[in-house]
Amino acid sequence: MRTSIATVCLSGTLEEKMRACADAGFDGIEIFEQDLLVSPSSPARIRALAGELGLSLDLYQPFRDFEGVGEDLLEANLYRAEAKFKLMNQLGVDTMLLCTNVATATVDDDEAAAAQLRRLGQLAAKYGVRIAYEALAWGRFVSDFEHAWWIVELVDLPNFGTCLDSFHILSRNWDPSGIEKIPAEKIFFVQLADAPRMSMDVLSWSRHHRVFPGEGDFDLAGFMGHLVRAGYDGPVSLEIFNDVFRQTDEVRTAVDAMRSMIWLEEQTLLHLQEADGPGGRYAMKLATLPKVDDPSGFNFTEVKAEDTAQVQELLYQLGFGYAGRHRTKPVQLWTQGQARIIINEQQARKMEPTIAALGFDVENPVAAASRAVQLKATPVLRPSQADEEVLQAVSAPDSTEIFLCEASGDGTVAWMKEFNPRTGAPDYAAGVPAAGLITHVDHVNLAQPWQHYDEAVLFYESTLSLDRQPSTEVPSPVGLVRSQVMRTEDRRIRLALNIAPLVLEHPASAPRYPQHVAFACTDLVAVARRALERGLDFLPVPANYYADLQARFRLADGFLETLQQYNLLYDRDEDGEFLHFYTATVGNVFFEVVERRAGYDGYGAPNTPVRLAAQYGRTRRGRG
Amino acid sequence: MRTSIATVCLSGTLEEKMRACADAGFDGIEIFEQDLLVSPSSPARIRALAGELGLSLDLYQPFRDFEGVGEDLLEANLYRAEAKFKLMNQLGVDTMLLCTNVATATVDDDEAAAAQLRRLGQLAAKYGVRIAYEALAWGRFVSDFEHAWWIVELVDLPNFGTCLDSFHILSRNWDPSGIEKIPAEKIFFVQLADAPRMSMDVLSWSRHHRVFPGEGDFDLAGFMGHLVRAGYDGPVSLEIFNDVFRQTDEVRTAVDAMRSMIWLEEQTLLHLQEADGPGGRYAMKLATLPKVDDPSGFNFTEVKAEDTAQVQELLYQLGFGYAGRHRTKPVQLWTQGQARIIINEQQARKMEPTIAALGFDVENPVAAASRAVQLKATPVLRPSQADEEVLQAVSAPDSTEIFLCEASGDGTVAWMKEFNPRTGAPDYAAGVPAAGLITHVDHVNLAQPWQHYDEAVLFYESTLSLDRQPSTEVPSPVGLVRSQVMRTEDRRIRLALNIAPLVLEHPASAPRYPQHVAFACTDLVAVARRALERGLDFLPVPANYYADLQARFRLADGFLETLQQYNLLYDRDEDGEFLHFYTATVGNVFFEVVERRAGYDGYGAPNTPVRLAAQYGRTRRGRG
Repeated sequence: MRTSIATVCLSGTLEEKMRACADAGFDGIEIFEQDLLVSPSSPARIRALAGELGLSLDLYQPFRDFEGVGEDLLEANLYRAEAKFKLMNQLGVDTMLLCTNVATATVDDDEAAAAQLRRLGQLAAKYGVRIAYEALAWGRFVSDFEHAWWIVELVDLPNFGTCLDSFHILSRNWDPSGIEKIPAEKIFFVQLADAPRMSMDVLSWSRHHRVFPGEGDFDLAGFMGHLVRAGYDGPVSLEIFNDVFRQTDEVRTAVDAMRSMIWLEEQTLLHLQEADGPGGRYAMKLATLPKVDDPSGFNFTEVKAEDTAQVQELLYQLGFGYAGRHRTKPVQLWTQGQARIIINEQQARKMEPTIAALGFDVENPVAAASRAVQLKATPVLRPSQADEEVLQAVSAPDSTEIFLCEASGDGTVAWMKEFNPRTGAPDYAAGVPAAGLITHVDHVNLAQPWQHYDEAVLFYESTLSLDRQPSTEVPSPVGLVRSQVMRTEDRRIRLALNIAPLVLEHPASAPRYPQHVAFACTDLVAVARRALERGLDFLPVPANYYADLQARFRLADGFLETLQQYNLLYDRDEDGEFLHFYTATVGNVFFEVVERRAGYDGYGAPNTPVRLAAQYGRTRRGRG
Repeated sequence: MRTSIATVCLSGTLEEKMRACADAGFDGIEIFEQDLLVSPSSPARIRALAGELGLSLDLYQPFRDFEGVGEDLLEANLYRAEAKFKLMNQLGVDTMLLCTNVATATVDDDEAAAAQLRRLGQLAAKYGVRIAYEALAWGRFVSDFEHAWWIVELVDLPNFGTCLDSFHILSRNWDPSGIEKIPAEKIFFVQLADAPRMSMDVLSWSRHHRVFPGEGDFDLAGFMGHLVRAGYDGPVSLEIFNDVFRQTDEVRTAVDAMRSMIWLEEQTLLHLQEADGPGGRYAMKLATLPKVDDPSGFNFTEVKAEDTAQVQELLYQLGFGYAGRHRTKPVQLWTQGQARIIINEQQARKMEPTIAALGFDVENPVAAASRAVQLKATPVLRPSQADEEVLQAVSAPDSTEIFLCEASGDGTVAWMKEFNPRTGAPDYAAGVPAAGLITHVDHVNLAQPWQHYDEAVLFYESTLSLDRQPSTEVPSPVGLVRSQVMRTEDRRIRLALNIAPLVLEHPASAPRYPQHVAFACTDLVAVARRALERGLDFLPVPANYYADLQARFRLADGFLETLQQYNLLYDRDEDGEFLHFYTATVGNVFFEVVERRAGYDGYGAPNTPVRLAAQYGRTRRGRG
């Protein structure tokens, strides 16, 4: 698949954008006219730079508001077009995007529009230019790709074809299967955009909320399937108008964009194989990625800090047992059931406790790492001794290191033998076995900077095949927090991405939004009782919360008192019940323990505001 | 008018919110249930704090999803309600907001709903509680306030009335005149929210985009008029769900909120006087503000910096004449026509050149300042000598000082006599008179932090009576810039507020978004020619821009070359033509000179991306 991208997707100058696109691995670009107009670089310079960078210049865009107008305006439009054709000759671009008229069209007559477009096409031919006519979803008289294609047929010129844009087609719920009826040689260009489903006017939706494929709700593999079946083999280009991408680093955004293309290419092939059988032969060549199964569990979580004493104590209070010090590094292991926490003080100067790495159980670590790296993840290289396990790892967009580990049937992991339980235990934990009430990690919650939310979703979706759930928003005392759960179908991996609001006014007192690990247990009250005995600092839950809980759920006698005694939170739905508590935060990390009863499948979302307010109450300073 | 505000409008803890509301001058508050649930403060403590702060607790809200349900759920709902009535007794709140059922209603029958609501009302009566029933715009069976009022009539209990919310009524375009048919004693509560007109689903619009009165597009003075005519005299309360207000300083937001109430009170009175004549007698007492006419011109602009040498030179190059040094302070005056620039090096240590103050010509400075202060603007007190003009000034939300100055018919201003033209002129300017090509200030452009956009709009609208124009968005290389013009009807004051995107990734290289003063002239080419002779550093305009200009406008022979020679930009619309150029930026300030031909009334918005890109190109460092 030939990949291309419109320069409007990225921040920076035109030259900066071009370098970012080339570095990310795109084959070509679309020159967005505005980017050229404001650039001090001449067309000849841009052409030369593209040559140096190995980028093809696939499209010049957009030309607007041409057809369906009176004769005077038509003359002016032809004059305007001819100037652009000359410019395209200087640039060395042979295809121009023409959008259906949104502003100046007054004549709703396909034949008349086609006659005017024919004049444009004939003029373009003199300059060796092809016109790719695209229906905008909000076109004045032409808003449907099949209508635009009908006009292209009426124009009937070899250098006049159509451009198909997934946003304009899928946003209006036009049936994309009609694409297969268009001859491949008349599809001059293809633009792709994904978008979250939103109930708003389509123009605002298009201008501000497009995202890269895989980051929204459109079925782009299905869309691509129609194109491939039509025999299309030209560039597939991203055209994403997104307020956030416009203001973030263009190098990073271009990598995110390329990841979406690589992923979509695989998804398209899988879609075609499923829909048409494995024997399909198509003009477009689609590359594949190493296939990997869903991860089958959390292998470990690593907490890193200069001083981890408080984290160790929290783990002890939660019933974890000390499982040893690494034989060569200042690294500890604590375990309970299948929950393994690595405590790392290596290369952690001035670092507050932070979730630094997550290990995932996978069938084939080498294949999984190779897949991630092909999806533009950065490999993590940790120095290891000759006799240590070699672990496969990549870096996630938020810098969390993702380790891809071999799962073992019996619940032990190979690297544990590198830890010596006879050295380094804190006094209080020495010789105290794990309590065994906690069974495994239920979920991990990672904070994400809001500007990299879409990128993070695509990363976990594409590299680890996690499924995105509907996102929710919960109020905190300093703004709304967006929560996005990614999980495997069997729920063995549940990863929540939390996007905290920017804390704008009180930077000194504003805590970083903390991350956490939630442990699963079968008897939360027992875990809490032991933790209380061992002196755990529970996150306090206000009495007002319990009064409301009683009003909502009419709990059995004594149960409310038990909840309140241990600062436990409670939720109930049609599927079951959920009990959980939180520890105090240490640095940027806290822990949660949860008990799922019956089929409860959520995360106690109604209780999240209580947690956020309690954490805010504990960390703010100097307000009011 | 009794003012109230829902705690959900503000950030912080419940106690922080309450203090902010009291400090801003609200009479009372609505307790938003969630704020109480997450608070460690007991109901008794909240009641006592309200007493200390002099705040009445006007409403407990919201109670949801009560009516139109099966018998089992009705029992659970009554149990839930009774718990809340007990809580309200502890708080000392006598009115509960009940929203029409959105989630659990299954029975679409007004009589049946009323029968269930009557049971709720009877239960409430035992606790001395009144129920205010409000139609949510997205209610399952009841979404119209007249429908809700019909059900209130069916319930027919003295303690069962209605709550009217401007958002739920105006967002759905229900006719608010029906309010006048509701007996005043049955309107138990009134909630106000403004909002920008948006094409999106009403629930998302309501949850995220409400703003304070005067910051959106609703006719709230008209809405209030119906309430006043209905004889309503209870609290008028703000209920604003806004993502930005949730994350900004609650003290500042509360002041913004109070300003909107004071302004709305005046607007309501003016509306009633205009609609009903001045003799209207209403139960609600509406306070007035000092009435002031529109400002009639810019009196001066002050640029402040530790070192103003480069600014002085720019002014000289633009043809300004040196008009003297202040007799007691390190302050200069430069003038040309009616454009006066004060250059201030006083108390400006380490300060880059910045627009620090704007003077406006007003009929009555004392009245104008008094109006602004009553609208919660902070007075600015500058020390002045006995023989100096005493100037009235307040501080705008972005810290720009707003001076309210006496206009004089002959174009001179009284304070100019404090400047001595014989001292302090730079060598190059000594004895050089003003060129006289520039006539006055056309507009001033102030950068605003994005989180204070709505506040700034209301400030200038309410204190200076500037009219808000439709806002526009223009792309820059680091994100979209929102531009909001505020102006007087006669165009003598044009103030543009620019909201620049957060620069997220390159803080070191990111310039502050600069501000500027645009001067009007009658012969831009002459101004530019002189400026070039005097060595002005023009903001460079790329050749690609001129090629596009020619394609779009087919300019007369030679004209394009003139434009290009002086880095002039050009625009044309049905009303006329616009020529302008920009200087280089010094610190946070640059200048623009504009020539309006015929009736051109815009600001050359199509050229703004060219300016933004050129400024970005000049200030970025170390990218790519």
